[in-house]
Amino acid sequence: MSIDEETLARVALTWLAEPGTRSVHRLVDRLGPVAALDLLLDGGAPDETLRNSVAARCAAGDARAVAAEALARTDRLGARLVVPGDEEWPVRVDELRRLRLPEAYRRVDVETAPPLCFWVRGSWPLGEAFDRSVAVVGARAASGYGTHVATELGYGLAERDWTVVSGGAFGIDAAAHRGALNAGGRTVAVLACGVDRPYPMGNAALFDRIADTGLLVSEWMPGADPLRPRFLIRNRVIAAGTLGTVLVEAAARSGATQTTHRALALGKPSMVVPGPVTSAMSVGAHETLREHPKARLVTGVAQVLEEVGRIGDLAPVPRGPQRPADLLDDDARAVVEALPRRGAVGVDVLAARAGVPVRTALRKLSMLEELALVLRRDDGYALAPPPREQTARRAATPDGA
Amino acid sequence: MSIDEETLARVALTWLAEPGTRSVHRLVDRLGPVAALDLLLDGGAPDETLRNSVAARCAAGDARAVAAEALARTDRLGARLVVPGDEEWPVRVDELRRLRLPEAYRRVDVETAPPLCFWVRGSWPLGEAFDRSVAVVGARAASGYGTHVATELGYGLAERDWTVVSGGAFGIDAAAHRGALNAGGRTVAVLACGVDRPYPMGNAALFDRIADTGLLVSEWMPGADPLRPRFLIRNRVIAAGTLGTVLVEAAARSGATQTTHRALALGKPSMVVPGPVTSAMSVGAHETLREHPKARLVTGVAQVLEEVGRIGDLAPVPRGPQRPADLLDDDARAVVEALPRRGAVGVDVLAARAGVPVRTALRKLSMLEELALVLRRDDGYALAPPPREQTARRAATPDGA
Repeated sequence: MSIDEETLARVALTWLAEPGTRSVHRLVDRLGPVAALDLLLDGGAPDETLRNSVAARCAAGDARAVAAEALARTDRLGARLVVPGDEEWPVRVDELRRLRLPEAYRRVDVETAPPLCFWVRGSWPLGEAFDRSVAVVGARAASGYGTHVATELGYGLAERDWTVVSGGAFGIDAAAHRGALNAGGRTVAVLACGVDRPYPMGNAALFDRIADTGLLVSEWMPGADPLRPRFLIRNRVIAAGTLGTVLVEAAARSGATQTTHRALALGKPSMVVPGPVTSAMSVGAHETLREHPKARLVTGVAQVLEEVGRIGDLAPVPRGPQRPADLLDDDARAVVEALPRRGAVGVDVLAARAGVPVRTALRKLSMLEELALVLRRDDGYALAPPPREQTARRAATPDGA
Repeated sequence: MSIDEETLARVALTWLAEPGTRSVHRLVDRLGPVAALDLLLDGGAPDETLRNSVAARCAAGDARAVAAEALARTDRLGARLVVPGDEEWPVRVDELRRLRLPEAYRRVDVETAPPLCFWVRGSWPLGEAFDRSVAVVGARAASGYGTHVATELGYGLAERDWTVVSGGAFGIDAAAHRGALNAGGRTVAVLACGVDRPYPMGNAALFDRIADTGLLVSEWMPGADPLRPRFLIRNRVIAAGTLGTVLVEAAARSGATQTTHRALALGKPSMVVPGPVTSAMSVGAHETLREHPKARLVTGVAQVLEEVGRIGDLAPVPRGPQRPADLLDDDARAVVEALPRRGAVGVDVLAARAGVPVRTALRKLSMLEELALVLRRDDGYALAPPPREQTARRAATPDGA
């Protein structure tokens, strides 16, 4: 049994039943692809659904001949087939073995077995491309805000040498790819149709740019149609192949949240970018955050890398501007805060308001004078006028808000 | 010992030390306000800070005389004093007894004892006002987005007969009050200065409107200055007096998050409205959501009421438009999804693609025809053109996003 026969069998199996079909994957696991194919072609499928699917396919053509033609076409395209065991196989997708979605009810949520093979366009090794990768997914009908955020994420990830993985749709997918490409990064589009079929057509030029330096990847043979369920089948690869998934925008009850749900079910970092509550395109994102305690709110690339990254990639906690008052101890702060916003006050009243002894107040006041936070005047002590610009003035007003 | 003497003592104590001072509250608890006042005036404060504060105040005037004058001024204003034991005392603020902030390091985070008394302007009983109340708080330098959301929340809460409680600042505070007033609702402004001192001046007309139907409330006597620490002292009343707190906008490291932190420390519903990650005014909101697993993301009044409300106030889960396809069983959905987006297909191929037996496909197809989802044509079965408007068309395209 040559490796070519095995490869041919995998391709034939992909044609006989949609990728992800668990019963097919189990047969391949047990018998290997060649014997699994023989069994199916002999009518030995373990369930009626699969038996019918195989029978209908076989009525339309010879599985091995179709597979051979698909492989020839793959060569003509300058694409290649990648199978498990190949050095470039992205091993993380095999985690799909253990994916069981809670309350799965649709076929597409149950049939989530690992891929049998990948078609790949682009020279980068597939496994290497996925190695340090983050999925950026979201709505097709993205808003200007979502498009901006996805572009920034794509750019920031690529800049730090992370691979962006997404689908090929308009909206968030395309924005994430463009951001990465603009940073000179490499990006991976996982398609739900043949790697030779630009879908949507409007992204054809983008697909070519992606294939130049990154990869177009598919579980379907060249020429395969982007049938609707295939987008959902495809999503499991995006969730499983990457180190984490970021959802940028999603309408209520939208398919865009599905990849996130799969990443959650796989126990992978599942991140969601919030948005205005007034935007219909953020409703699905906010719902995901509300319903899944493990879904993590992220606001930018630093926080994404904190979730997926190794030690050392920790995101800085956002801070307001540094102010001299930050350096004060408790008593000094109390003295400053007890000063009236306008006018001056005597040290006795000040000490009382601050709740500190008078000698403490005097000691702190002399330090505060040196820091130019307090002025000594004839009528007592006063707040110094705020330094420099508006930001500092704002920070010094009472509400602290 | 008459009730007036007790009231006078409470007012005097409020003048001798800032509200919230734990040692004062403990004395009152143990000795009652009159004896506690006597003890302090005799120099018997239990710690040096308090002793100094009292001494400095006493140098400036006689505590009982100041209190008597404050009460006379309260009468002249048409305001009133409310003390514990009064029928209208808002008992929930007494929960502050058990407030211990984690890692408290500033005096304002430690001195969080319950109030000794409240000054109130407006005829509504104070306890009743707080009974079904939600705090809406946030930044003064609110964005148009934040202002809009706070106004909507205020409106929605008032419309459902909930009281809005907030401070008196520009930005989110004012927007929440205005929203409530526009809905014909009543609203409570908790001030950090005397109820006769409009601060900020720009909100003077708003304060008058609030006092007409709702309440202006303060722990400081008439004429008291809005000193900076008082805003933070005041916040504990907003957190403790209400059933829950909603944070609408907050810059990084801003005082606007302090009320939320206190609500969290009190174990009360603490809600945060997300916003664009591109907005500086949402950074503090997002950080609160990231750092506090108990802080709950909310997107509107229904979700706020779900957190604070009784059974029956559950918010509906947002849903996309109802589509006939939602009613389909698994097999019928598989058949629909296996149909090509353009053109027709024979039943054998369709059954194979859908992975169902041919007889099942035929049964489902006849039902789908009746639902006007599928057309039977000479060349096979085809998807029916989408019904009505653009939304439905969008929902029918492949990506499912």
